[in-house]
Amino acid sequence: MTHEIAVIPGDGIGQEVTPAAVEVLEALEPDFEFVEAEAGDAVKDETGEALPQETYDLAAAADATLFGAAGDTAADVILPLREAVDSFVNVRPAKAYPGIDAVRPETDLIFLRENTEGVYAGHEDRLTQDVSTLTRVVTESASERLAEFACDYVAGDDHDGFSIVHKANVMRETDGLFRDTVKGVADENGVETDQVLMDAFATRVCLDPEQFDVVVCPNLAGDVLSDLAAGLVGGLGLLPSANIGPDRALFEPVHGTAPDIAGEGVANPAATIISAAMLLEYLGYDDESDRVHTAVEATLEDGPRTPDLGGDASTEDVTAAIIDRL
Amino acid sequence: MTHEIAVIPGDGIGQEVTPAAVEVLEALEPDFEFVEAEAGDAVKDETGEALPQETYDLAAAADATLFGAAGDTAADVILPLREAVDSFVNVRPAKAYPGIDAVRPETDLIFLRENTEGVYAGHEDRLTQDVSTLTRVVTESASERLAEFACDYVAGDDHDGFSIVHKANVMRETDGLFRDTVKGVADENGVETDQVLMDAFATRVCLDPEQFDVVVCPNLAGDVLSDLAAGLVGGLGLLPSANIGPDRALFEPVHGTAPDIAGEGVANPAATIISAAMLLEYLGYDDESDRVHTAVEATLEDGPRTPDLGGDASTEDVTAAIIDRL
Ligand SMILES: CC(C)[C@H](C(=O)O)[C@@H](O)C(=O)O
Ligand SMILES: CC(C)[C@H](C(=O)O)[C@@H](O)C(=O)O
Repeated sequence: MTHEIAVIPGDGIGQEVTPAAVEVLEALEPDFEFVEAEAGDAVKDETGEALPQETYDLAAAADATLFGAAGDTAADVILPLREAVDSFVNVRPAKAYPGIDAVRPETDLIFLRENTEGVYAGHEDRLTQDVSTLTRVVTESASERLAEFACDYVAGDDHDGFSIVHKANVMRETDGLFRDTVKGVADENGVETDQVLMDAFATRVCLDPEQFDVVVCPNLAGDVLSDLAAGLVGGLGLLPSANIGPDRALFEPVHGTAPDIAGEGVANPAATIISAAMLLEYLGYDDESDRVHTAVEATLEDGPRTPDLGGDASTEDVTAAIIDRL
Repeated sequence: MTHEIAVIPGDGIGQEVTPAAVEVLEALEPDFEFVEAEAGDAVKDETGEALPQETYDLAAAADATLFGAAGDTAADVILPLREAVDSFVNVRPAKAYPGIDAVRPETDLIFLRENTEGVYAGHEDRLTQDVSTLTRVVTESASERLAEFACDYVAGDDHDGFSIVHKANVMRETDGLFRDTVKGVADENGVETDQVLMDAFATRVCLDPEQFDVVVCPNLAGDVLSDLAAGLVGGLGLLPSANIGPDRALFEPVHGTAPDIAGEGVANPAATIISAAMLLEYLGYDDESDRVHTAVEATLEDGPRTPDLGGDASTEDVTAAIIDRL
């Protein structure tokens, strides 16, 4: 069965790393039809819209989307795209690779971030000159859906359970509902959980990342704590992510457009290529996905390396080396 | 002039480290009158109330309060106590001390955390079985008051300005108001600022903490990011904090009740003693405050040390060593 893959390079190094990941995918000859579309600062400058309707519709119809990065318009692009694929969970692995300089080389975490609500629900008001408000929304249904995904996730691999990270000592009703709902679903499925306050998690993950494995959390907590984990593994350059929906999904590196090096052909394509490996697995190409992971890890360990990792190779050199090792 | 100091040891190791800090204060013979009061799990078990009205009233009337820690009732104790002193800013230094094993020994940060609103404003509802909401509040007036404090703070010492940390790309109205108001006050005062998204801050502070100095942020961001910094300096055991109001203030270590070691007399009193040094400075005892800081640093470097720092000294040994060095 042919899968339609939307490819949205976006801005900056998105224009360099996204084609690199497509090259890797093509080398594996899956039954994919790639369709490219525009989003981001550049298309906004031209047309007034950061996310043209055609691009939204394409992501909403494709089997999977590969997205690069967007500049100042990032929120206007990525938040609606997550909605286009009806994504309820953002899967963010944060793993330190052998041979890469990391603050905490033992880090190997998977964040399962709620992807639809929390402060991202986006209801804000300016009530008076002085007072502004934002309505943070937490639902039982979204918490349940996330928890069911988390239970399947830990069952499919050798995980002992997951940690529920929240701030229910302050956000008693909303994070209380989140925590209790997720815990309830885990209990029903016989999955072990522990509960950690998000501030305590921030301290503890720095001191000893190995005490955590799979982390289930609300939207903003997942945003901040996965970026913290990115710091522990040595930066955003290696972190992939998957926005999973019931029928389709969107894959993106966690990094941004890197305007300082954009256009120079030296961006590290690893995060986008690992995101492409997640895309392969999502569509059932498990063997091909494993081959990409293995080839990327070998290349990270033995080179060639882009300048962000202390090397002087180009994006193209690294991509070719990964394809060679497939 | 005699200053009245409320002393609230609370639960667990609060009962050990708070008297230690009072001993250090007494050794300096300031014109203080100490009045002790109860709060926390133990008094709740006895009376049904984690924060008795007398304790609240005492903190609301004293010139300064020294608080230890509270257990499960922490939020029910510390949030009203911050309100009792009308605290609008939580000052949280996170500094790695020489000789202490730290993930990032270069860390030397000051968080100025908004202390009255954000998600802590505490308006929550369960609208239906499925839907819960929390109203996050950000006001121009609280942002202004914090920014004025921050401008004074950086002027008084050798700081080049401050970083404004926020998530205004998602919380556009509320964190937009925070960011713009703080920036406006800084501009008026000729104070330099830069702006950093809170997720990007989490990555960047791990990779290179020296790029930051004074960090001004909303309430929950300050909670999580200062705890992250605590992880970078080697744990919560050394971190003091000050909740400053217009007429009074409350000082507390950032750590909790440490139930695993409570009652054994081996709790590290450093964070509470450094909090007491901040109290001395607040009340105008600058010289005495410096002496405490210097004595604590010398003791951290040369010992004796409590077990959390790899030693086998008691709380009393460490306190005596600090007093010896005053
Ligand atoms: C660009 C921004 C809206 C986005 C988010 O906050 O989710 C980004 O930080 C991310 O984590 O993908
Ligand atoms: C106990 C809790 C309510 C409190 C907070 O969230 O402010 C604590 O984490 C802190 O940082 O002092």
